[in-house]
Amino acid sequence: MVANLVEKAEQLREKTIARRQDFHKHAEVAWTEFRTAAIVAETLAALGYEVLAGAEVVDEQAMMGVPSAAELDRHVERALAQGANPKWVEKLRGGKTGVVGILKGAKPGPTIGIRFDMDANDALEAEDANHRPVKEHFASVNRGAMHACGHDGHTAIGLAVAEVLASLRDELSGTVKLIFQPAEEGVRGARAMAVKGVADDIDFLLGMHIGFNTKKIGQLACRIEGFLATTKLDAVFTGVAAHAGAAPEAGRNALLAAATAALNLHAIARHSQGPSRINVGQLEAGTGRNVVPANAVIKLETRGTTSAINEYMCSEATRIIKAAADMYDVQVVIREMGGAAGAENDLCLVERIERVAEKLGIFEEIMPSCYFGASEDCTYFMERVQQHGGKAAYLMIGTELAAGHHDFRFDFDEAVLPQAVALLSAAAVELLQQ
Amino acid sequence: MVANLVEKAEQLREKTIARRQDFHKHAEVAWTEFRTAAIVAETLAALGYEVLAGAEVVDEQAMMGVPSAAELDRHVERALAQGANPKWVEKLRGGKTGVVGILKGAKPGPTIGIRFDMDANDALEAEDANHRPVKEHFASVNRGAMHACGHDGHTAIGLAVAEVLASLRDELSGTVKLIFQPAEEGVRGARAMAVKGVADDIDFLLGMHIGFNTKKIGQLACRIEGFLATTKLDAVFTGVAAHAGAAPEAGRNALLAAATAALNLHAIARHSQGPSRINVGQLEAGTGRNVVPANAVIKLETRGTTSAINEYMCSEATRIIKAAADMYDVQVVIREMGGAAGAENDLCLVERIERVAEKLGIFEEIMPSCYFGASEDCTYFMERVQQHGGKAAYLMIGTELAAGHHDFRFDFDEAVLPQAVALLSAAAVELLQQ
Amino acid sequence: MVANLVEKAEQLREKTIARRQDFHKHAEVAWTEFRTAAIVAETLAALGYEVLAGAEVVDEQAMMGVPSAAELDRHVERALAQGANPKWVEKLRGGKTGVVGILKGAKPGPTIGIRFDMDANDALEAEDANHRPVKEHFASVNRGAMHACGHDGHTAIGLAVAEVLASLRDELSGTVKLIFQPAEEGVRGARAMAVKGVADDIDFLLGMHIGFNTKKIGQLACRIEGFLATTKLDAVFTGVAAHAGAAPEAGRNALLAAATAALNLHAIARHSQGPSRINVGQLEAGTGRNVVPANAVIKLETRGTTSAINEYMCSEATRIIKAAADMYDVQVVIREMGGAAGAENDLCLVERIERVAEKLGIFEEIMPSCYFGASEDCTYFMERVQQHGGKAAYLMIGTELAAGHHDFRFDFDEAVLPQAVALLSAAAVELLQQ
Amino acid sequence: MVANLVEKAEQLREKTIARRQDFHKHAEVAWTEFRTAAIVAETLAALGYEVLAGAEVVDEQAMMGVPSAAELDRHVERALAQGANPKWVEKLRGGKTGVVGILKGAKPGPTIGIRFDMDANDALEAEDANHRPVKEHFASVNRGAMHACGHDGHTAIGLAVAEVLASLRDELSGTVKLIFQPAEEGVRGARAMAVKGVADDIDFLLGMHIGFNTKKIGQLACRIEGFLATTKLDAVFTGVAAHAGAAPEAGRNALLAAATAALNLHAIARHSQGPSRINVGQLEAGTGRNVVPANAVIKLETRGTTSAINEYMCSEATRIIKAAADMYDVQVVIREMGGAAGAENDLCLVERIERVAEKLGIFEEIMPSCYFGASEDCTYFMERVQQHGGKAAYLMIGTELAAGHHDFRFDFDEAVLPQAVALLSAAAVELLQQ
Repeated sequence: MVANLVEKAEQLREKTIARRQDFHKHAEVAWTEFRTAAIVAETLAALGYEVLAGAEVVDEQAMMGVPSAAELDRHVERALAQGANPKWVEKLRGGKTGVVGILKGAKPGPTIGIRFDMDANDALEAEDANHRPVKEHFASVNRGAMHACGHDGHTAIGLAVAEVLASLRDELSGTVKLIFQPAEEGVRGARAMAVKGVADDIDFLLGMHIGFNTKKIGQLACRIEGFLATTKLDAVFTGVAAHAGAAPEAGRNALLAAATAALNLHAIARHSQGPSRINVGQLEAGTGRNVVPANAVIKLETRGTTSAINEYMCSEATRIIKAAADMYDVQVVIREMGGAAGAENDLCLVERIERVAEKLGIFEEIMPSCYFGASEDCTYFMERVQQHGGKAAYLMIGTELAAGHHDFRFDFDEAVLPQAVALLSAAAVELLQQ
Repeated sequence: MVANLVEKAEQLREKTIARRQDFHKHAEVAWTEFRTAAIVAETLAALGYEVLAGAEVVDEQAMMGVPSAAELDRHVERALAQGANPKWVEKLRGGKTGVVGILKGAKPGPTIGIRFDMDANDALEAEDANHRPVKEHFASVNRGAMHACGHDGHTAIGLAVAEVLASLRDELSGTVKLIFQPAEEGVRGARAMAVKGVADDIDFLLGMHIGFNTKKIGQLACRIEGFLATTKLDAVFTGVAAHAGAAPEAGRNALLAAATAALNLHAIARHSQGPSRINVGQLEAGTGRNVVPANAVIKLETRGTTSAINEYMCSEATRIIKAAADMYDVQVVIREMGGAAGAENDLCLVERIERVAEKLGIFEEIMPSCYFGASEDCTYFMERVQQHGGKAAYLMIGTELAAGHHDFRFDFDEAVLPQAVALLSAAAVELLQQ
Repeated sequence: MVANLVEKAEQLREKTIARRQDFHKHAEVAWTEFRTAAIVAETLAALGYEVLAGAEVVDEQAMMGVPSAAELDRHVERALAQGANPKWVEKLRGGKTGVVGILKGAKPGPTIGIRFDMDANDALEAEDANHRPVKEHFASVNRGAMHACGHDGHTAIGLAVAEVLASLRDELSGTVKLIFQPAEEGVRGARAMAVKGVADDIDFLLGMHIGFNTKKIGQLACRIEGFLATTKLDAVFTGVAAHAGAAPEAGRNALLAAATAALNLHAIARHSQGPSRINVGQLEAGTGRNVVPANAVIKLETRGTTSAINEYMCSEATRIIKAAADMYDVQVVIREMGGAAGAENDLCLVERIERVAEKLGIFEEIMPSCYFGASEDCTYFMERVQQHGGKAAYLMIGTELAAGHHDFRFDFDEAVLPQAVALLSAAAVELLQQ
Repeated sequence: MVANLVEKAEQLREKTIARRQDFHKHAEVAWTEFRTAAIVAETLAALGYEVLAGAEVVDEQAMMGVPSAAELDRHVERALAQGANPKWVEKLRGGKTGVVGILKGAKPGPTIGIRFDMDANDALEAEDANHRPVKEHFASVNRGAMHACGHDGHTAIGLAVAEVLASLRDELSGTVKLIFQPAEEGVRGARAMAVKGVADDIDFLLGMHIGFNTKKIGQLACRIEGFLATTKLDAVFTGVAAHAGAAPEAGRNALLAAATAALNLHAIARHSQGPSRINVGQLEAGTGRNVVPANAVIKLETRGTTSAINEYMCSEATRIIKAAADMYDVQVVIREMGGAAGAENDLCLVERIERVAEKLGIFEEIMPSCYFGASEDCTYFMERVQQHGGKAAYLMIGTELAAGHHDFRFDFDEAVLPQAVALLSAAAVELLQQ
């Protein structure tokens, strides 16, 4: 049957590549994946999946870093103009662009979940003729949105896996649950679906990424360590403007509040229990050279190898920001803009996946270990599954990249697509066998 | 003769108002006053003045805060399209939009200079119907440029004074030198003309502003104190970006360099010899939350009641900025974007002007003192004149304002125009009498 | 009569010098002037003055920067051992070392107050043979206490003035009130006497200092400007220690709280209404290189040309210190250690003193103006007098100095003593004449 | 033979305890171990060891944190007064208090080194009767010096091991090299001996500590991880004092330079390759509240899990300190006061020691792993040995403590002494067997 799956995945190769290129061309950034999600929902439904979408799978309160209502509306119009099915778009309104497909196998058994992310990056895609998406005419038509992280591939893989598993329904003992998540960039989207409970009944959860630390076709990494828990914060300071020459004492200086916050944030004490991170990535303040600045915003993130260490960083950061505002007698509003939990792959599940991969015979190198060292909000789903007694693993599937992730010249070797389809399908079959 | 001058000024009232409204409608920001300056040059020439313009009166090295060449070219095109005389525009190319008119009297005598500024503000003019320029159809057609400080009036006054004095040439003992300066906003323009030497032969220099501390028609202030010397600096920091999670140690943090600069700049020790000021009015840094910021810019200004105190502030600031860059191992480029000298009105000249004003009988209140507390680059001319043994004074001539200076609803009562024309003409006549 | 006063002062020359040298030899720092104050009280009583002392003239709550009870007790013992009269010392216990002498003239009239300060500096007096106090055997025997500001002279002058005026009692119309104040150094003592109300019934108050801006015998300055109001603060931060290698996150860093306070204190915005000052003069923090520092103290002062500007600085400083503590999650206690008000000399009183000085014929130069630019807590008395409708003036009486004020080699030409006695006596006589 | 060694160590129990208590009673802090080192040298010589000492084994340039010459001289006198042999003391002059004893076995073979540290802590020993050293009359007679870390025990162990191995000379194939090091506290002493090359010919090096993570008699830890490389720095800032009220601009503020250094030092970016540390443990600045502070000193340390990470921290720190000085236009001198390398135990050596320990039968628990998480300058010797192709291991030998290391009530159960003697002797014998 395993050889069979490699063949099935191969048969879907062209379709999968076509889908990936279509998603690439119509790249949609976080919370605006109206067209992508509508296509996902429609396809899953057509394959016989029970489809949940919008408010059914996304908790509005838990959404982070959502564009304004006007911006969302604009994207709804854009998506409709780009052919999105109005029925599904309607369900997704308000940026609730998550979709879940459920397929019950012929026999009872555990539930396996596979999670895919759908959003593009805020980036201007390369326009030179050497960039393959340009040459082959699938470069993004949505200016400022670009799939520079491979989520277009992830979504296409997900739909092909859906098709393979639907064709094997009679042989499955248990349930397949495919989670298509918005807004992974900025780690903003998973929490809203996790909080909604979509992963709570999953016994085995798989997440995956193409590329990254596996840089060649045929590489596979299952023993992933070093997921960094993270919190993304914006702090908006509001002071009082004054003429810097005529009445400096009348001002309340938001710029200096932000500057002293930035400096002291970076001075948060290191944590003895494991790596932590802090970064104030942006600071914008002031309106004119001769005005005491009344406005400032900083955009920062904290990280930690465990959720506890990240919480330490985040709680220190919050106190420091507030004190910086007090120091300059300005107001501050702190907003949580994103986040991811820490996580650990379950070793017993990892070993099963590795055995499946070996059987497939398409992976030349299964890496003995792999340090992630970054953040992925798939961890929110993993945490929920593990809290409920399930097992979770996150995989990296190799492919050559034209440029690094998030680079405006990013592209990948699409040969990874059928390989990923085969592996995930095979893993599901393995886990849902009696 | 004095009564005569009031009358002459009155006769020019309509023409002066019309000119002011024309300049208002075609507002031109710093270094782009191609149309305004061309009209000034043409008018002076027609009145019989010797006219110097462009590179003859503007030192290219000393120009500060000049737009890019492309931007300047765009404005040349705009000015030509708005009817500017190509002959004069050609002379003004490169933003050298200064004009000087020289009129030799019938008899020998001293040289009196009067300085006018011509540029508009970077502001979007109010569009509501209550705003008089809108109602009376002379609102700015150059979007983003607006005369919100009254320099349109100053230029119109200057041309009327030119006309009055030309008509009195035979009675004048000495020389009239009218200086029309670009780029007073941001105190960027005077230095380039002063360095060129245009004020070096002036025995009596007058500068003036309408409105400001004299808020009513009929008010006059000649005993101005508290000109603040100032320097405007931009500091551009360039570091090295790095992934804030994966390799924070690989970054060179320009944001923190800018933040620590800002904080320490504000901590420059006060000066015991008089008031000083420092303001970091803007700070912009970073490109993304999860990237160690590789770019930052701060826009700041220093001030002092004397040029020496301002130089102390400026030299401290420069050292601090460089050290902040060193501290974070980033590069920094510091650019001087504007400046003004400190200055003092010569009391003996002030008293003569006050007596002239009294004789005119059109000023109800001559203020006993007036604290300026801000910066004006007319001080560069004043400093040069005084260094060469001449006398200088700066006057404020009252008018009601619709809104404060630099406000997008700014407007003034044009009744001030003939009053200013009469006063300046009378002062010149008085100073050039045998 | 004026010539008479110069003569009377001359007759007391030797006695005054002897007293000054005795006070110098037994120098007593702030709040420990038990011997000095006891001698003052005893002398005034012997001259027929009504004498108030200790709790009668010092408000305990308003005393600032007082040594510990044990330290005070030690000084009581020292003073007794150095011959202080136990009766008076008993009244002065607790550091309440202020004395007021009251002399009612024969006829009714206004009250004139003259204020003298008695305390020495915390300094180790020079020990080399060239230092005159060493050569002439009146160097301080109280190690660590030294009259390096001339208050020994002030006290001696006060007692001679007391003697001169007592001899003229029958000719005086009104009351003489001589205020001998402790703890001028650190501007700690005047407030406690002013709050007690000792100056509230004074119509004309004179304060004075020898040396300072009047650097030669025969110089006199009465038109003093630029008294800086000031507040002296200590801030004590208490955090939590932790091993810097093993558990840095467990610490609460008092050193960084103090450092960020220091930096941001110096960044308090300048005040447009006049000069202000801030100085963190000392910072001590931490116990060991490898321990997160749990303790820190900063000693600072704010100043302003007016009490209002100083209050602005002080209130900004207090907020900043508290916020710095919050920022590092440490505790802070802020203690007021001293202070002085802003003040202005009453010009009408100044002019009367100048006329008296001219009549005396012993002053070669009466300075047309004099900028003080420092703090003196005599201003607390001046403020109270002026608030009650009286007039106040502070004088500087010239003398050559061996080294600057507060220098360990300080000494002055004692020829100033009879001159000051003559001037103050003459001023009192003038003001208490019918 | 192993059982034999346990017995031999037992026979030396009383002598070893007596030595330990004698060293405890005559505690000597870093670089002043004249008496201790003299006893060590004398004892080794008596046992037949070749003895090198002073300049023969200590590189003067590489000594860190050495007391002043006067202080050292004072300690020489003290040591002589306490019975130190003048011959050896003379060799140790200048604080070069290192001693090396060399014993060549009967047959050729490898060189085994064992390193012991001899110095006491800067601490005031507890004086209450419950403190065993008080009760049993061996509390420190050198006020301010106290063995609060167990080095008294280490030295006594070393001399007993020397005696045991000397008695076995005929059975040894190779050379024994016993290194007695000064100044481990503050990690100041090892570098000077390592640089001198004393460890360069060692094939197997053993270091050890009693107590620490092994808190009970019978515990042993050989698999030590997490040695933190460290550097100890002092930075001394020198500015210019000025009166804070009268001429603040004339000052050069060393306090603010130190404060901004402290803040920015703590903001050094975390390193992605492993834990790093920074601590500014002390800051002292300024002399008076109203003086712009002209002096400041900070005492800091950097750490890293590898020497490379520590070097990153140290090089960042150095740049930041220099830039902070530049920022305030003050001078700075940075002095290296101590340091330790990172290190790793060689696993093959560890396993041999563990087998020896098992054979001895006196250890109840051999810990499977042990995280050190601190710094030890034994690592400098380990690094040199490993660089030359040798193997190194550091051991912890358990004992109950009366209070934690560096606590003024520190004491330990002396039952550890013969156990350590047996283990180290047995290890040497094992490693020097054919």
